[in-house]
Order: sequence, then C-alpha cells, then structure tokens
Amino acid sequence: MAITYSEEIQVERAKTTKINSVDFNNLAFGKIFSDHMFVCDFEDGKWQTPKILPYQPITLQPSSKIFHYGQSIFEGMKAYKDENGSVFLFRPIDNCKRLNISAKRLAMPEIPEDYFMNGLKELLKIEKDWIPTSEGSALYIRPFMFATGEGFHASPADSYKLVIAFAPSGPYFSGDVKVLIEEKYSRSANGGVGFAKAGGNYAGQFYPTQLAKEKGYQQVIWTDDNTHEYIEEAGAMNIFVRINDTLLTVPTSDRILDGITRKSILKIAEDEGIKTEVRKIKVSELIEASENGSLKELFGAGTAAVVSPISGFGFKGKNYDLPKLEDTFGARLKKRITDIQTNKAEDPFGWRIKVC
Amino acid sequence: MAITYSEEIQVERAKTTKINSVDFNNLAFGKIFSDHMFVCDFEDGKWQTPKILPYQPITLQPSSKIFHYGQSIFEGMKAYKDENGSVFLFRPIDNCKRLNISAKRLAMPEIPEDYFMNGLKELLKIEKDWIPTSEGSALYIRPFMFATGEGFHASPADSYKLVIAFAPSGPYFSGDVKVLIEEKYSRSANGGVGFAKAGGNYAGQFYPTQLAKEKGYQQVIWTDDNTHEYIEEAGAMNIFVRINDTLLTVPTSDRILDGITRKSILKIAEDEGIKTEVRKIKVSELIEASENGSLKELFGAGTAAVVSPISGFGFKGKNYDLPKLEDTFGARLKKRITDIQTNKAEDPFGWRIKVC
Ligand SMILES: Cc1ncc(COP(=O)(O)O)c(C=O)c1O
Ligand SMILES: Cc1ncc(COP(=O)(O)O)c(C=O)c1O
Repeated sequence: MAITYSEEIQVERAKTTKINSVDFNNLAFGKIFSDHMFVCDFEDGKWQTPKILPYQPITLQPSSKIFHYGQSIFEGMKAYKDENGSVFLFRPIDNCKRLNISAKRLAMPEIPEDYFMNGLKELLKIEKDWIPTSEGSALYIRPFMFATGEGFHASPADSYKLVIAFAPSGPYFSGDVKVLIEEKYSRSANGGVGFAKAGGNYAGQFYPTQLAKEKGYQQVIWTDDNTHEYIEEAGAMNIFVRINDTLLTVPTSDRILDGITRKSILKIAEDEGIKTEVRKIKVSELIEASENGSLKELFGAGTAAVVSPISGFGFKGKNYDLPKLEDTFGARLKKRITDIQTNKAEDPFGWRIKVC
Repeated sequence: MAITYSEEIQVERAKTTKINSVDFNNLAFGKIFSDHMFVCDFEDGKWQTPKILPYQPITLQPSSKIFHYGQSIFEGMKAYKDENGSVFLFRPIDNCKRLNISAKRLAMPEIPEDYFMNGLKELLKIEKDWIPTSEGSALYIRPFMFATGEGFHASPADSYKLVIAFAPSGPYFSGDVKVLIEEKYSRSANGGVGFAKAGGNYAGQFYPTQLAKEKGYQQVIWTDDNTHEYIEEAGAMNIFVRINDTLLTVPTSDRILDGITRKSILKIAEDEGIKTEVRKIKVSELIEASENGSLKELFGAGTAAVVSPISGFGFKGKNYDLPKLEDTFGARLKKRITDIQTNKAEDPFGWRIKVC
C-alpha cells in the first residue's frame, strides 16, 4: 500500500473500496463502515503520529484495561453534503471539547484539538463519497478512545488509542417512539460519570431498556436516582417538553449529558420566538399536564436521533398519549436545525464548518 | 500445535513456556500472565465450544461494542497450592454466580456454571506450575466477558467473549493503606450497576482516586451519592470497622459489591466468637469513635487485597489515625481465612475446593 503524508498525518490508502456494495438509499444506523479510519495512539506519556489507515481490526492483549476497567469514551457527530457536494460539520469543536471532558473524568489523556480536528477533516476529505444525501441520512462519525495499557490492577492504563470511524447512516429510530419513565433503575449518580460519554453509562441502560421494550416502549426516560421524581434524559437524547406554548428542558448536571443538539435547539427556539425554560421537571407535572391537556409535545434531541417526536409515555403501568398536532415545535425546530446542518439555510449562529 | 480434547473443551497447547523467565519470589500484582487462557464465545444465541488456547492477543472490529457501550464484566479469584502441591480454589461457584448477576444487569448472556467451572479447572490443571507459594502470593484468576458484536447503535451486542486468564501475583498493596472518605464523587447510583463487577464502575473511580493519591491516600472510601453521610466500600474491597470489640460492616445493596471475602470474614468472625453487626455506618460515627478512642480498627476485605489493615483515614481535610494494636481482629481473621484457602487449617464451612 502506498504511504503518503498530508501535513503531519501519516496516510495509508486502502487498496480497494467497499463503496459500490452499499445501498445508500436504504441505510440502517451505524452498521456499515467506510474504507478508512483515523487512529492516534497515546504512549510514553504523549500522543504519537496520527494516522489514517484502511478500516481494519484492532488487536489487543487480553490484559488490556479496556476489557477490565471500562476506560472507554466516545463521541457522536455527523457530516452532511449539500447540493453542490460541499461537506459540512456541525459544531465539531464542541464534540472535541466534550470528548476531553469525558477523558478527564475517566482519568484518560485529553486529545489536543488540532490532532482531533485535522484528523477528522483529512479523513472526511478522503471519505467524502461516503456521505449519503437522501432525506434523513448522514455520515455518522464515531470518535472513540479506550485503554490499551495492560494489567489486572484497578488503576488507569498507561496507553490509549483514539479512533475515528465513519458509518453512513439512515434514521436512528424506525417508526413511533414511546418512552417509559423509569421508577426503579438509574442511569447515573450524583458525583458520578453521567455527564461523560463513557461506555459504561450505556451498558447500564440496556437491561432496563430491554424491560421497557417488553412493555412496548423504545426508550427509557431516566429519573434522578434518589427520588425518581424528576425527569433527566433518555438513552441517547435529551428531552424537551412543550407545555402550552412554552418549551421546557431540564438543566444539565453531573448526571446528564450536555447535548449539542439540546443547546442548539434552545438557541434556535429563542431565535424563532418560542418561549423556553430550562428548569427541573417533575414527573408529576408531566402527568398533570397530560391530564389537563396542556402537554402538547414531547421530543428527544440528539445527534443520532436529530429531533424525534415522542408519541406517548408510560408511568406506573399507565400510558399517556401525546396529542397529534398539525404544526409542532418539534417539526419546525427539526427543519431549522437540519437546514442549517445541510447548508439549506443561513447559519446565523456560526455552527456550520465547511470541510471541503 | 497439537490439538487434544479433554471432555468437551478443545485444548491447544502452547509450543513454549514463559515460566522460566518469571521470578516467583518477586511478583507484582497482575502484571505477568501464564501460558494459556480459557476462551468461550457466545454467538448465534448460544455458547460455542469452550477452548483452552495459548495466551494470545484478541482481534476485534473497531465497531465491536466493547469499544463503545461498556458491556464488560469481570471476576477476581485466586488459586492456592499447599505443601503437597495440591491445588485449591476458594468458593469459586460464588464467583460464577456473581459473574452471571453482573451479566444479567449489563444485558449480557449468562454462562452455564459447568462451562465456567470445567474450563477453570482444566486450565488450572494445565497451569498448576504457575501457582506461587511464597507468603502473600497466589495465582490471581481473572474471568472476564465483553461484547464482541458490532454496531454504532446503543443496544446490546449479539456476540460476546468469555476469557479466563491467570496472573501469578504478589500482594495488592505495598505498604501502608490510608483511605480518603469521599465527599463529592460517587461510585454508584441507587438502581445503578454498583453491585455488578462492571468495567465502567472502575473507570469512574480512577479520577477521584488520583485526587486522593495526590493528598496521600491510596484508596477512596465511597459514600452514598445522595448525602455522602454513609460509608459504602472502597475501590476493590469491602470495609470493616471495629468499634470497641464489635466488628461492623455495612449491608450490601444495589450500590455495593457483595464481596465473597466480606461474607467469609463475617462467618469466620462469628465462628471466632467476635461480635459482628451488619448495619449502616455514618461517617460522623467513625469520626466520633476515632475521637473518643472506641475506633480500634479499620480494614478492607477483598480477593486481591485479602485483609488489608487501614492505618488512617481522611475526611474534610483532616486526618484520623488508627491506633496501633498488638492483636488485631484483622490479623486474626486474615490468618484464619488464608489458612483455610491454602489448606493449612480445617475448613468447617466447606469453602475450599480441591482441583488436583
Ligand atoms: C446520553 C445522551 N444524552 C444526550 C445525547 C445527545 O447529545 P448530542 O446532541 O450532543 O448528540 C446523547 C447522544 O449523543 C447521549 O448519548
Ligand atoms: C468494588 C469491589 N468491592 C469489593 C470487592 C471484594 O470482593 P471479593 O471479596 O469477592 O473479592 C471487590 C473485589 O473483588 C471490588 O471490586
């Protein structure tokens, strides 16, 4: 394989491409991976030469700490292509910053912003044909970092690997989303790692989510672990509530992920003249609002899920349906954010970054 | 390599051994690994043929869920050799049961007890020369299971790998152990995964433990995440407190690991006529007892740490030293449990299992 150099990144091109075997009009979420990946190793106390390599397996010792002590963090972002074939990222520096917030909490090394951004952009230039353009699809970008260092001793590893891989993806949810408000299990603790995108936060959600699925719900809305009286967020999205004409979402905390979609939606809503409130929301308030008809909408917001309307929620064995409205805040905000992301609309906020 | 079969386990022998390069009188903890490992894959909805293979690297796709969603659990156990060269395990079924408790909570498949026990015993027979016999050392056994199945979708994997690897090991702690009682960070949530040996529980402890180390403490004693008023457990051991002549430990819960050493120590203490109490312990009670002189001992109990005396603890910037006693409960209980484990004493409880 020919080895070329682009700036400081060592690039090794794949000999063949898998792209012709992909049906870009029928994409699942995160199941197909592009031809190359970005890799950077942290060893001997520093980040080594960043590389773009053919997408390939990773080989590790059985004693690598990723297998034992959960030092594993990730990010989720998307790249979009406009009608002219130009490639855009949405607030990517925020993902890099959040990756480093996660890294710090998990005692992992922080990645310099230019390593991350240059690697990501170079990889995107090479893989730009992998960006799908059909409605609701995008190139899902998965940066992840994990402990490679060895030892059966519960202490931080001395080496790590950062990888960025791409998966052209369709919508995250297929069909209606119903959520169960959790009364027993919890996602995170005060003083814990809930605000980090740490692998362990997700594994812990699977079993309660399976139980919810058995009852006909796709996702769980987590509540505070102490009283279960306040809603927090869902498995992979922050939650918005519309009561009459006010759009509510809960404040972030050390238990809740500071979603980039969440904060963007808040800004756009303000820009659209929608009244917003960031405050704690009691489960009992949701129930009451549902019963007295003031609960108009419930939706999730996240990179993977974009804006996903929720059609109903369950609590203590009872199901509460949301009304079916014509013009929703959700649809309006989704269109606005998607148009900004895909260069179909002005970006007064300076969020969009053109890559090539 | 010659392939032989022992019962249903497929055995492939290593061509060479590393054993001659090991200094068995100067062992660190969990840094050297024996020649073989036990491997069993879960695929297509069932556990496949169990194998004993030369200890070797593991190759995974970048999209394997272990790298993204933290589906990773483990166990820690030890094998001991007596003067006649006979090999013993200590309550191994309890480790298998706990592995399966962890598996269920993390939405991973449970391993049948006979797969686990037969694999472990066969591997031990092959590796019995790796069991160190010097004071304070043992063969540390690390069963671990993780998600191999692929996808950038936060949902349980469809395939998993169980590995059992061996590390001849010396003591877990070198020297004095001082602990910091945590006031800000937490290990686990009500309704969370704290009772499971999930990888993510450990990564979350590293950063607060680093902060404690900078202040001169080796370990953190975790407190409840809601009030930080009650002590829970340490990073890799349950905590015992001796007030006057009563030995106390806190009840296990969904936030605390149900330690096998802990429950064994409780039984032995009763057998020794020591008064025990299992109840909640307030940090303020510890402080008071330290100040009025009734706090006699503090020790940690765990497979890796055995019984580790704690010489002092920190709280709110103040240090509290434990008295230096001649005959401690800790030393007496440590001798009794170690003698049972190494076949130096009767085992009235039926805990010891002879392997070969
Ligand atoms: C737990 C959790 N909450 C919220 C979000 C939404 O965050 P963002 O909008 O930055 O994708 C995600 C997904 O990234 C998530 O995993
Ligand atoms: C968090 C935690 N608590 C307690 C223990 C002690 O458990 P056991 O005595 O079963 O080894 C361990 C170690 O295994 C542990 O990791």
